[in-house]
Amino acid sequence: MDLRVGVIGTGAIGEDHIRRLTDVITGAKVVALSDINVENARRIADKYGAKFYSTGEEVINATEVDAIVIASWDETHAKYVIEAINAKKFVLCEKPLATSAEDCKKIVGAEIAGERQLVQVGFMRRFDRGYRQIKSVIENGKIGEPLMLHCIHRNRIPGPKHTTEMSIKNSVIHEIDVLRWLLDEDYKTTQVLMPKRSRLAEEGLHDPQIVLLETNSGIRIDIESFVNCQYGYDVKCEVVGETGTVRLPDPANVLMRSKGTNSYKIFPDWSDRFIEAYDIEFQEWINSVKKGIVKGPTSWDGYVACITADACTEAREKGTIVSINIPERPTFYNSTVDNK
Amino acid sequence: MDLRVGVIGTGAIGEDHIRRLTDVITGAKVVALSDINVENARRIADKYGAKFYSTGEEVINATEVDAIVIASWDETHAKYVIEAINAKKFVLCEKPLATSAEDCKKIVGAEIAGERQLVQVGFMRRFDRGYRQIKSVIENGKIGEPLMLHCIHRNRIPGPKHTTEMSIKNSVIHEIDVLRWLLDEDYKTTQVLMPKRSRLAEEGLHDPQIVLLETNSGIRIDIESFVNCQYGYDVKCEVVGETGTVRLPDPANVLMRSKGTNSYKIFPDWSDRFIEAYDIEFQEWINSVKKGIVKGPTSWDGYVACITADACTEAREKGTIVSINIPERPTFYNSTVDNK
Amino acid sequence: MDLRVGVIGTGAIGEDHIRRLTDVITGAKVVALSDINVENARRIADKYGAKFYSTGEEVINATEVDAIVIASWDETHAKYVIEAINAKKFVLCEKPLATSAEDCKKIVGAEIAGERQLVQVGFMRRFDRGYRQIKSVIENGKIGEPLMLHCIHRNRIPGPKHTTEMSIKNSVIHEIDVLRWLLDEDYKTTQVLMPKRSRLAEEGLHDPQIVLLETNSGIRIDIESFVNCQYGYDVKCEVVGETGTVRLPDPANVLMRSKGTNSYKIFPDWSDRFIEAYDIEFQEWINSVKKGIVKGPTSWDGYVACITADACTEAREKGTIVSINIPERPTFYNSTVDNK
Amino acid sequence: MDLRVGVIGTGAIGEDHIRRLTDVITGAKVVALSDINVENARRIADKYGAKFYSTGEEVINATEVDAIVIASWDETHAKYVIEAINAKKFVLCEKPLATSAEDCKKIVGAEIAGERQLVQVGFMRRFDRGYRQIKSVIENGKIGEPLMLHCIHRNRIPGPKHTTEMSIKNSVIHEIDVLRWLLDEDYKTTQVLMPKRSRLAEEGLHDPQIVLLETNSGIRIDIESFVNCQYGYDVKCEVVGETGTVRLPDPANVLMRSKGTNSYKIFPDWSDRFIEAYDIEFQEWINSVKKGIVKGPTSWDGYVACITADACTEAREKGTIVSINIPERPTFYNSTVDNK
Repeated sequence: MDLRVGVIGTGAIGEDHIRRLTDVITGAKVVALSDINVENARRIADKYGAKFYSTGEEVINATEVDAIVIASWDETHAKYVIEAINAKKFVLCEKPLATSAEDCKKIVGAEIAGERQLVQVGFMRRFDRGYRQIKSVIENGKIGEPLMLHCIHRNRIPGPKHTTEMSIKNSVIHEIDVLRWLLDEDYKTTQVLMPKRSRLAEEGLHDPQIVLLETNSGIRIDIESFVNCQYGYDVKCEVVGETGTVRLPDPANVLMRSKGTNSYKIFPDWSDRFIEAYDIEFQEWINSVKKGIVKGPTSWDGYVACITADACTEAREKGTIVSINIPERPTFYNSTVDNK
Repeated sequence: MDLRVGVIGTGAIGEDHIRRLTDVITGAKVVALSDINVENARRIADKYGAKFYSTGEEVINATEVDAIVIASWDETHAKYVIEAINAKKFVLCEKPLATSAEDCKKIVGAEIAGERQLVQVGFMRRFDRGYRQIKSVIENGKIGEPLMLHCIHRNRIPGPKHTTEMSIKNSVIHEIDVLRWLLDEDYKTTQVLMPKRSRLAEEGLHDPQIVLLETNSGIRIDIESFVNCQYGYDVKCEVVGETGTVRLPDPANVLMRSKGTNSYKIFPDWSDRFIEAYDIEFQEWINSVKKGIVKGPTSWDGYVACITADACTEAREKGTIVSINIPERPTFYNSTVDNK
Repeated sequence: MDLRVGVIGTGAIGEDHIRRLTDVITGAKVVALSDINVENARRIADKYGAKFYSTGEEVINATEVDAIVIASWDETHAKYVIEAINAKKFVLCEKPLATSAEDCKKIVGAEIAGERQLVQVGFMRRFDRGYRQIKSVIENGKIGEPLMLHCIHRNRIPGPKHTTEMSIKNSVIHEIDVLRWLLDEDYKTTQVLMPKRSRLAEEGLHDPQIVLLETNSGIRIDIESFVNCQYGYDVKCEVVGETGTVRLPDPANVLMRSKGTNSYKIFPDWSDRFIEAYDIEFQEWINSVKKGIVKGPTSWDGYVACITADACTEAREKGTIVSINIPERPTFYNSTVDNK
Repeated sequence: MDLRVGVIGTGAIGEDHIRRLTDVITGAKVVALSDINVENARRIADKYGAKFYSTGEEVINATEVDAIVIASWDETHAKYVIEAINAKKFVLCEKPLATSAEDCKKIVGAEIAGERQLVQVGFMRRFDRGYRQIKSVIENGKIGEPLMLHCIHRNRIPGPKHTTEMSIKNSVIHEIDVLRWLLDEDYKTTQVLMPKRSRLAEEGLHDPQIVLLETNSGIRIDIESFVNCQYGYDVKCEVVGETGTVRLPDPANVLMRSKGTNSYKIFPDWSDRFIEAYDIEFQEWINSVKKGIVKGPTSWDGYVACITADACTEAREKGTIVSINIPERPTFYNSTVDNK
């Protein structure tokens, strides 16, 4: 039987997830939704045959709703996640889990208090075919022990009102999560370099930035964040091991020979680049919720990502190396079945 | 509401389609199945909650069945397709539509007599992202008028009892259909070259072969068919136009640097290479059946592919250039909505 | 001591060879030259400090000239080569060795009569790093026994007054020689396919063409010849063996990401693409002449290429498969030290 | 007339340069040489027809010697360069120009005092086709203003007795010079990161390292130095500009499909990777010396590279960000004709 999903937040990403759950994923249907933009939400409710509710809390507590997807404004994530935990319903929350580590901690506390893992955070890169291949290469010892990672995260242009801080909190946070998952260890220190500023960045935005991370075992990571690169959406990740390297391929697009060049297209934005990862993420989430378990990134992962991002922000502001202090992982989260 | 599908033939491919319809595709469920291997069919029926029937005809006529998938032995395709037409049910038949052009013609006749398009043939390459990009490049005039196509179709090793004839009838037939769809024209002549035989081919199998085709407008196509290439499954297609070329990319796999080489994996077989195309094919079929239309390759396409493959076989046997005589397309098939 | 070279023909290619011998190659200097364009020849003679002679024969017989380079009008090649043989001087003759097989045969006869190998033909691809790597891969059994070769030879635009016949005689003749050298066997049959004509080709020129060749052992070769491809100069060669394939890489040019694409430049013409091969050809020729031997393609190779090209032309004109009848190689040419 | 060259140091690199000057480069011959390994030096002198001298000073001052190549032990570079300046002879000194900035400064002083530019430093990457293409792309504004550079310099295994310090002084120094040339500006600060150590590095060697540099205008550079990467010799350079990126290609090697992978070879060491750059470097040096000028990297460039490398070493030892204080360039070096 189809899992009945309630969606909170029906902006661009929320609506795309509703489409995904309806037209792409098997085993689910969207039955309820809400958004502060009531008119648009009612339109979408009509289109997909879901019921419109005035508040996220109503969606969460609606009896016809089995599980929740949160795609609302970042500042509202924490309260909805906690409401879902209280309602004892599985919830997939778009990243970030919350806008402060403190709020993440509250979520973790609530989940532990409820004695059941219910929360998954929307770090979809763990579901990308390329990252999964890299993880497999590492785990099979094909490149020896990892020593360094070189990563790049470029957007053609940023979303509206993008700030220097958001480059880390909303963008590099994907690398923060997925690299930690690839390496299976936490971070120890961070430092942020500020290269020459692109004149194409909006007033007040320092872009690009380079985030340096060091893991507990000493692996060194550099992440270029460049939200105004102009040419397209581009994500790279190279893991350098003791005996070899592995890196993400470019997505496969047809090869053209024309006008003096050999070329292929680079996708203009993340929705094309990671569409398959989102599809897999949602299908696996639906499948695991039906089994009553959480297999993807947990609220603990969301908390750790938030602590790390905060440390990066501090490092950027102070211009120094900053320690990242990750608390010991509660045994509650040991049982997590990782999504390999 | 889910489309209720009956599947005839539950061998490797049939079972994979049942899995696809159940676990991957949205909007469908498998409710009935049959196979000559009763024991295996019963096991699969149990696993997926479908009802086992003794014959394909019973599946087709079962009242709980809305649409049919045929994945049985090639020789049985024609009779099941005609039965489905008679039952006025939509049917997706794995290629080939039939094992003789005569039988294809009967199917076409039955469909026209029934006054409704119901049949789609399982030429999944039309749903491959790469081929679709090529079609779009051609249609947008990015490489000018196409003049030549260079194609390659290699298998690591052939299936059991593979014959010289099967290389064309079961393998090159994919190119025969998809290139005709890419170019939107029929073939005029064919010739088959027999290169030096690989000593790794089984006794009695002449492998590789090179199929030459000429379209009505004079475009020249060469297709290497090599079912014993040993290294992997490999499909290439390059379209050479008046001002540029476009070609299929290799599937994206991670890039390794190790032991003196830069390398990436080539998939070992077609199921990995075209898995996404199969998924899209089935999803679009389900979606179009629900709308009461056929959007993919029709029985006319299956008929034309069969006539072409027969001509190639004749050309191979005689060692000469052979004309391909495609009858005029009945207006009945003009209404076909192509799957772009 | 520097080898003193006389150059006959100082058009674009001849002048480039004079520059090469002077500024790039070690161990040689150009001391004499002639050309029917006297004014231009005198200018070049002044520039490089060589002596101008009124006729090629004078250059050949000048006492200060040790060896000859022929880069004059194709029709004059044969007489100058024979003159050089009579003068007992080493000679590097640009392809083709002669404009008819009959004339090639006369050269071979004269060389045998003179009892010394003196002639090398300017098939520079044998000196290309990529083709040499392919030959090494084949000889080391890395892809098993070769079965098929897929080749492409494209020019952006043809030279002035390019004819349908010249596409084979002046362009595909490079493939005819280098593939025979790669495989170490002669050709048995040929056939020429005429694809749809590019409307960008000049009046009277049928372009593109596809040349099919079959070697004595049954290896099948297809060569696309397209002298109006518009986008650049492009040479491809893939050898398909029983266990793997090897192919020429594109020349290494920097990789750009810009305006939505990843791209690299394709060279506009052969002089960029094969500049290194020409340099190596001339350096090795100078080195071997100093040792008193011929290591590159011989007049026999030039003769065989000419017979093959003539057969291709006949096949094109008649539209049939044509036998290629290569005479038995005289033992005189067995001693040839091949340039591996 | 050939430039008569004296070579000091006939170890592996010195002997290779003698071969290059003799067999590859035009316009030069090696007439004199010396080395502390007398036996080997005499053997090479015999082989190439050069005169053996007991000391480098004798080579420099020999009347038959027009110009000097220094390929001796690093510690001896400074004294020989100064001797050559005093003898008013052009000299090409392998990098490093000297083992201390102080000695470089003395060389610069001696050259200025002599009132003539005579010294070129053996930074051959400026002559590499790829780096030159990158410089051209930057200068033509194809990627906008450069903001960041990501560089990699990997050796399969290090030479004997390789130390942590040598990774910068002998290896990264190539990047230090060539990136400064690409960007046409000096460095302001440096920092060195020490990733997890490879267990395959010899006792006492910390490998890999990551060198961070900041230019005067704020461009950020990261250089991975990894001398034990095991898989091959690998040099990468990506320049990220405001509107696009450009990067070095891998050297062109044939593409193999075999045993489940598509692959090409990575060169095992620098001599293969940069052989063409060395050839061009020497040919251009010979050509410019004949014109009485220095066109390549000057002693000032050698001095700046040494100051920068020293700062990197200090940064590594102290674990902090270190300022790089480059003195103002004397007008004497403004006249340098750069080798574009």
